[in-house]
This record gives sequence, C-alpha cells and structure tokens, in this order.
Amino acid sequence: MRLGLVQFAPRIGEVQFNADSMLEAANAAAEYGATLAVFPELSLIGYPPMDLLRDETLRETCRIALDEMANRLKIPALMGAPSWEDGKVYNAAYWVSDQGWSVVGRKVLLPNYDVFDESRYFQSGDQCSVLEHDGKKFLLSICEDLWARDADVKYPTDPVQLALGAADSSVDFILNMAASPYSIQGIPRRAHVLQSTANRCGIPVVYVNQVGARADLIFDGGTSVAYPNKAVQELCPKFEQGVALWDTDSNQHLENFIWDSLRNDSRMNRDLLNPPHGSNAIILGDHFDSNEITKALCLGIRDYLAMTSGKKVVIGLSGGVDSAVVLCLAVMALGSENVTALLMPSGYSSERSVADSVALCRIHEVAYQILSIEDSFSAVMGTLQTKWETQPTGLTEENIQPRLRALFLMAYSNQYGAMWLNSSNKSEAAVGYSTLYGDMGGGLSVIGDLYKTQVYALANCWNAHKEWIPSSILESAPSAELRPGQLDSDSLPPYPLLDAILMDRIEGSLDEEGLILNGHDPDLVRRVMDMMKRSEFKRHQMPPVLRVSSRSFGRGWRRSLV
Amino acid sequence: MRLGLVQFAPRIGEVQFNADSMLEAANAAAEYGATLAVFPELSLIGYPPMDLLRDETLRETCRIALDEMANRLKIPALMGAPSWEDGKVYNAAYWVSDQGWSVVGRKVLLPNYDVFDESRYFQSGDQCSVLEHDGKKFLLSICEDLWARDADVKYPTDPVQLALGAADSSVDFILNMAASPYSIQGIPRRAHVLQSTANRCGIPVVYVNQVGARADLIFDGGTSVAYPNKAVQELCPKFEQGVALWDTDSNQHLENFIWDSLRNDSRMNRDLLNPPHGSNAIILGDHFDSNEITKALCLGIRDYLAMTSGKKVVIGLSGGVDSAVVLCLAVMALGSENVTALLMPSGYSSERSVADSVALCRIHEVAYQILSIEDSFSAVMGTLQTKWETQPTGLTEENIQPRLRALFLMAYSNQYGAMWLNSSNKSEAAVGYSTLYGDMGGGLSVIGDLYKTQVYALANCWNAHKEWIPSSILESAPSAELRPGQLDSDSLPPYPLLDAILMDRIEGSLDEEGLILNGHDPDLVRRVMDMMKRSEFKRHQMPPVLRVSSRSFGRGWRRSLV
Repeated sequence: MRLGLVQFAPRIGEVQFNADSMLEAANAAAEYGATLAVFPELSLIGYPPMDLLRDETLRETCRIALDEMANRLKIPALMGAPSWEDGKVYNAAYWVSDQGWSVVGRKVLLPNYDVFDESRYFQSGDQCSVLEHDGKKFLLSICEDLWARDADVKYPTDPVQLALGAADSSVDFILNMAASPYSIQGIPRRAHVLQSTANRCGIPVVYVNQVGARADLIFDGGTSVAYPNKAVQELCPKFEQGVALWDTDSNQHLENFIWDSLRNDSRMNRDLLNPPHGSNAIILGDHFDSNEITKALCLGIRDYLAMTSGKKVVIGLSGGVDSAVVLCLAVMALGSENVTALLMPSGYSSERSVADSVALCRIHEVAYQILSIEDSFSAVMGTLQTKWETQPTGLTEENIQPRLRALFLMAYSNQYGAMWLNSSNKSEAAVGYSTLYGDMGGGLSVIGDLYKTQVYALANCWNAHKEWIPSSILESAPSAELRPGQLDSDSLPPYPLLDAILMDRIEGSLDEEGLILNGHDPDLVRRVMDMMKRSEFKRHQMPPVLRVSSRSFGRGWRRSLV
Repeated sequence: MRLGLVQFAPRIGEVQFNADSMLEAANAAAEYGATLAVFPELSLIGYPPMDLLRDETLRETCRIALDEMANRLKIPALMGAPSWEDGKVYNAAYWVSDQGWSVVGRKVLLPNYDVFDESRYFQSGDQCSVLEHDGKKFLLSICEDLWARDADVKYPTDPVQLALGAADSSVDFILNMAASPYSIQGIPRRAHVLQSTANRCGIPVVYVNQVGARADLIFDGGTSVAYPNKAVQELCPKFEQGVALWDTDSNQHLENFIWDSLRNDSRMNRDLLNPPHGSNAIILGDHFDSNEITKALCLGIRDYLAMTSGKKVVIGLSGGVDSAVVLCLAVMALGSENVTALLMPSGYSSERSVADSVALCRIHEVAYQILSIEDSFSAVMGTLQTKWETQPTGLTEENIQPRLRALFLMAYSNQYGAMWLNSSNKSEAAVGYSTLYGDMGGGLSVIGDLYKTQVYALANCWNAHKEWIPSSILESAPSAELRPGQLDSDSLPPYPLLDAILMDRIEGSLDEEGLILNGHDPDLVRRVMDMMKRSEFKRHQMPPVLRVSSRSFGRGWRRSLV
C-alpha cells in the first residue's frame, strides 16, 4: 500500500471547496501511484469549527460532499469530518471509496485546554480503530489520541496502547490524522510524542497534519514519519500544502508533489516566502528557530488576509523594533507592493525615528506617507482645553496621540481597503503598556505572541546576514515617544526580567507563589501580576493574535475581567 | 431543620472575602433560628472561575478558608467550592461545621454550551448525594444536575431521578445550589424546571442561586421553592443579596433578612435601584418584563464598576434612543452625580439631537459637556486631503466622526477616571452597522444584548408613566447622523424585520436554511447572514456585553473569523 499523505489547508465551513480540493489531491496522488489518500483531522469542515457545528444543515452538506467524493475518487481516502449518531457528534475519520463511505474511527481523547474546546462540541469515541487494507493493518488515531502520556492534562487511559493490546494480530503502523497548531514549544514536543510512541510500540508512526492559518491559529503541517529508534523524518516542507508518498511495504518515503490547483492558490504562493537566512538561538529558555517563526507569521498574515479583506495592509511605523518587524513580515508575506507604511510623527517624535522609518521603507521598497498628527492633536487639545476646567493630564495627553494614529490608520484602511496590522508585542499586551483604540488596534496582531526580547531576537537573526532593519532602530532604547524623553524603562522593569516573569506566568502557568518560588523578585512579581490583572480589559478588546507560543492571549487565556 | 438560604454575591477569586462574608451570613442566619446555612454553587471562589482554577495555590487558599470557617461557624453550612482529588477537580459541595469540613456532593452534569465551559475545568461526579440532617433526608444537586430533561443539550441520564430511585427510604426535599445567570428567556425556563421536578418527584425543590454581576454575566438570585402542584414561590427579591429562612418541618418560608455588612456594600445599595414602574409586553415572542431587565442591567453596571474602576461613568449622547436608555440605566445604577454625558455634535448633527440630549440630561440632572468635533474633524480631514491623492470617500469620512467621539470619550475617561459606557445595541452589533474604535468602544456594553426593538420597548415601558426620555427621541427615525439626511433604513431592513431574523438566528440557532423554512424572506435572510459573517471581526473587539438573553455576543457566541 502506498499512502498519499495530504498536508491540506481546509477552509472553515467551506465544505464544497474542501471536498473539491481533497478530491483533486487524492486523484493526483493516485496518478503518482498512491493507493490510499490520507487527509488530516476534520479536513472536510476545517479546524476549529466552533459554533459552525451548531448549524443544522452542516450534516446534510457533509453527506452530499461525501457522496460526491465517493463517486469521483480514483483511490480510497481517509478523511476527517464530524459524525452525527443518535443525537451525538463525534470527531470522526471517514473511509471514502467507490464503494461509498463509512465512519471508521472516532476521536477518543478530546482536548479541552489552551485553545481547544472539543468536549463542548464532541462526544468521545470508545477506542481507537485498527483497520486493514491491502494486506496491512494499521491503528487509526486522531490527533490527541496519540498524546495520552504527554498532554497538558492527565488522561485516564492511553487509547493507542489499549487498541494495540486488543488487536488480534500484529499491527504494521500507527496513523495519526491531526489538526495541531504550531507553537515554538510545540514542535519539539510533537517530535518527542511521535518518536516515543514509535519506540514504545516498535512500529512506525505516520503523521499527517493540517496546514495554513485560521485567524489566530497557525497550522504548520509537519507531516512526518517516526521509525522506532531513528530520528523523526519530515515528509513535507512545513507551512506549505503538499502530498508525500509513503510506502507501507518498504516503510519508505518515496516522493513529494503538489497538486495543480495549489499552484494557483494565492494563499500559498511560495515565492514570496523568502525570509533572510536566520540563525537559531535559545531565547527565554526555548530553542528559537527564526526561520520557522518567520514562516509561521508570514503564513498567518497571508491566510488571514486572503480569507478576509484581500491582500493590502497598512502599518504604522513608530521608529521602534515592533513595527519594523511587522513591516518586514508583511513584505515577506504579501510583497512590498501590498504594504503601505504610515509615519505619524508628533512634536515628541525624534528625528531618528522618522529617518529610520523612512530608511526601513526604502530598504523594503514600501510606499509610505508622512501624516503628522500635530494639527489634529492641537485641534483636539484646543477643544478639551476650552471646555474642561482642568488642563488635560499627562496620561490624557499621551493617550490622545496613539488614538489619533489609530484614527489615521483606520481612515487609510477605509479609503484604500487595506487591513491595519497591529504591532503590539506580548510584553506590552501582558502588562497593559499600550493604549486601547490606539496602538492596541488593528485587524490582526502579528507579533502579539512574541515577547519584546523575542521580537529583538527575530530582528537580530534577520540582520545577522543583511541589514533588513536599520541598526539604529535595534540600538535605540525602546520608547513610546508620547512625552519628551520618555523611555519604556521609566514605567516597566527591564525587558529581560519582565519577559522571564511573564513567560513563567503565561506559558509556565505559575501563580504568584510559584513565580516567587521560582526565584523571581517578590516585589517585581507582585507588580507584574497586578499590571496583568489590571489590563485584562484591554486584552479583551485586542484583535486576534497570531499564536506562536504554547499559550497566547485570546482563546487560550481565559481570565475574569473582575 | 431550618434552612438559611443565602442568596450570595461572591467575588471571583477573592476567597478570603467570600469566606468572611459567608461566615457572617451564616452566623446571622443562626441568630434568626436557622440550623443549616446553604450557599450557592462555587460560593467560595465565585463563578465563572475560568483559568483561576489553573493557579496552583487556589487549593491551599480554599483549604485555609474552610478551616477558618469550620472554627467559627455557629451552625453547619453547605457551600460550593472545587474539590481536588487524585489529579481531578470537581465542582463540589462542602459540608462545613464545628466538626470540620468534607465534600458531600460533586456536580454530575457539567454544562458546555452557551457561556458554560465546565468540562474544560471539571470532572463529572458519579451521582447526586442524599444527605441526612436533623432527621430529614434531602437530595443535594448542583445547578445543571436539575436540568437533565430541559437543558440545551441531551444528557444520557437524570442524576436526580437516579439518586431518588436509589435512596433506601423516602427523601423529604431536593436542594439545588446554583450559579445560574439571568436571561429573559431563562427565568420562565427555570421556573418550569423547578415546578416540573417538584411535580414529578412529589417533594419540594429548594433553590438557592448566586446574585450579582461578573462582567458579562448577571446573576439574578431568584432563590425560591417549588412545591408539587403549586406555583413556584420566590423566597428572596431578585438582584439583591439576602437570606431566606425555610422550615423543613412545616415546608414553610418563615422570614427574610439581610446581614449587617451588606447594608454597607456599595454594590448593593438598593436605594438607587428605583426604576420607574414598567409595564410588560411580548417583544419578539418573549415575555418582556421591563422592571426585571432594568434591574438586571443596573446590577450589571454597578457591579462591573465596583469591581473595576469605581463609580464614575461617561456616556456619549447622540440624540438617539440607545444612548438615552444607557444614560437612564447609569443614573439608576450609580446616581446622577456619577454620570457625565458628552454631546459631540458635528456639522451633520441635527439641532433636534442636541436639544433632546440636553433635555434628557436636565430630566436626570446629569452634568453634560458639549464638545464639538468640528475643529478636530477639519484638522484630520485637512491632513488627509493634503497628503492623499484621492479625496476621502464617504465611508472614510463617516467613520472618522465616531472615532473622534471615541477619542473624546476616552480622553474624558483618562482625565476624570470615569468608565465610558458603550451604547451599541444587539441589532447593530449583529450586522456590523457600527464603527470599530468608534461607537463600538467603551469599557462595558450595557445594551449590547438588546435588539433595537427591545431598546424601544424598554424606553416606552419607562415612558408610559413619566417622560423619562424626551418623546421626540423616541419618535425620530433612527440615524447615525454621519452624512446629511442619513437614516438607518437606508442601509438596513426595518428593525422589526431585521430583529426577527436575528432573534431566530442567534437565540433560535437557525441557520440559513432554517430561517427561510421559518418564513423569513430568502433574500433578506441571505443579506443578513452575510452582514453577520462580515462583521464577526468587529464583535471580536467589542467590550464585554451585559447578557440578558439566552445567547449574547461574547463567550456564548463562537464563530470563526475566517
């Protein structure tokens, strides 16, 4: 048997589109000699479907699509879709062939932590299935089913181990159909799970995952095979659609290809994705692969734009590292012709920040406009000063500036149909060092899941080979430039200290006591915890944040506002 | 046995505060003759705790609080708190007395629909407990356990029925400890559940619920008793803290009281809560109790303010019904001395809207400022016109106006420490007839869960007895006044038609096909569904919305942004 493992990017709720694409991929795989096409978890409806599963007609739409695929498939296919049975819904695997279609697997372990809410929508299956085809037996698992020993929560049973134990003869390999989003920490964890399962069970583990970004979640693909006691072998390039052929008789990876329609899919135009050669480093305790993070964020931008407003974006350049990094990512993702920068200096903006922003635009051949906020700022202040009995305070005056910039960015967005990309980083968002309806705004937060030190690391990795970002941007002390001589360090602890606490709090899930036990300064811990609590309301109104860590703000972070 | 049923308002995560309050309430109840104090579900930690349950030290904090209560309670108490057992967490009931404390019940049915995510955090208990005290036997159920036959989802078993069947002798009554939020549709459903359970089981059902608002969720209390084949009897006034004494021997309600500290609780200063006498009506198919909705929203405002920024609010008055209703609610909730109105006319604002807004402020003795946005608007337009090759379009120009108003409101908020209350209604929010970072902004959305027709209904109910809102506000055709002669009806279907579709889509969970089958015009349905999908990104950045329906935007509405 030759598996055509399809690293596929379904669209959420676009069942017909997904079915057509899968049909084409499977039939293309057949021409390359595949005898079974395998698609990721929930490939027919996309992941995460959320309340789409509440829509009554989804069931019928899926049935029609499955019927049509059964009629037109040249080889059998395994694909993911919900199964509706006796008032319950399962996260299921379907076997579709010219004989019709049937449910052959139901996900047993339903993740309900971090960004996952599967128990909200699905019922657990009883056990993993063992299937037989072309003389081979394989265990079919769906995503979390493989993670019984390694998930963030403790599961009572290991459905893979149980099914292998119950099988009446030896199983040749384990198949895992996944919809597993990318994160810096998740990539090594996933490799560990594949490898340790292969070692423990003594048979190969074949893994096929979704690719593409859906708002905040980025799926990297990472379709691969783990053999017992060998290193995990990646079968498809990450962050791209494609098919890998894997032969079950020889246990060998044979070939890769992409199917025709994909070549014309603007979301996946791979030529644009050409980041400068990056170096790797250990940042905040994690292996930091700048190429991988760059690709992930570019895919996140491109897919979100493609599925919402189109291609054009606008970015406010402040002269700081955050907006510079967002501009570089946008150029890589969309091409410089689709990116516009607005420079919106005030009387407090330094000459350096304007000059550096212009230099950045020139390096990347990005069109820019300089829209001073001075006149508007004076007009607003004039109205307030006339009507108020007290003079506007520093805080009031400081916040008016980013809000006027947001107003200009949204005006540009309305005028030219460009999405405003937010430039906030995770450190600022965590402690609320940011202005709601000001720099917290935008259609998509590109680097809102990278701490300030990680943003610097990314920029420095890029710049190691070529000056992608003017070095004086990286060398200047971070400043919001909302009053004369203002520096971030006036209000915040040094970023390395701050980020280490935040990382232990957010990704590490330590509470106040745990942070102090972990060696952080108690006063600083209490100050940071307090800032985090007080700014929960700001994060509530943030745009979706591209997730690249094991815990990002948004659906994976659920704290009371009171 | 005399139960002291405590309609209690715990604060989320403030375990020590909650424990102190419960201790005081229980001991006060003892003085009134109670022999057992009963508190609502999760009364020790508040509801919904969400990721608070991930904090390691919560367990120890609860243990210390339970120890202290055991030491100081004059009568035994039943209260709600998590129970940590063998790596699992249950939503549990504790029996606390001078003998110590122990877990006596674990919630069996965990709701995972709408605003609930209990399977994310809790493990299901095996069965409801039957307890014996003072010669009486009672079945202890926690909230959803009573809803096996009536919930939004189908449960495989009815734990109340099972436990009654398994009891070895007759049970005297059923107790339900709840944290059940208010909704217009939920109140009659809850009465039905209590009544039908009492009828079916042939014994009284005693219900004690949380009260108070936690950001979006408003708990009404509604502590009551249902006797077989009699109407449900409410024991405590809704939307207030208090204790009701109920005697298990006579099956009688004896007395009500509030405990001392409550009299000084600013959140619960009941004198302010004095809405005009309202009439009831059927609006959009629901029984619309204007008094109840008014109280719910006032409690929502007051508690959110008390637990975040304090007491002061600022509201932008447009001359329309929405902001007028929000102003009235804020005055009722906080007193006119804590409310400031900003009137921010542009060249497109009618004289009527300014005059009516002034009249509204005079009726309610609310301070107002008139801050024309004209100068700021001209300055912004001037900058754009100089720099852009194309003239700002209508859409661009229209959106600048609400964004400048938002900027003024936030400037006022920063200057005077007042929270900006958002005035968007559910109809606008649903179809995106609103400006992000403009009228979509604010710290709390007060009427974001009321359709436009419901907002009118509320205003008309109030006005039936006294002109609380100048009648010309209610008589003018709705307009955003962003261009000359603009009317909502230029862009939207008539509100009664629109709201009927939205109600069937949102509360009724019908999809496109279902809406058409339900008799709505197919073209209009498709147009409305399209507007809803396209505006998902705006709702993603909305402030928390006070929930008064069975499905509000926010945590109960989870749709993909792509």
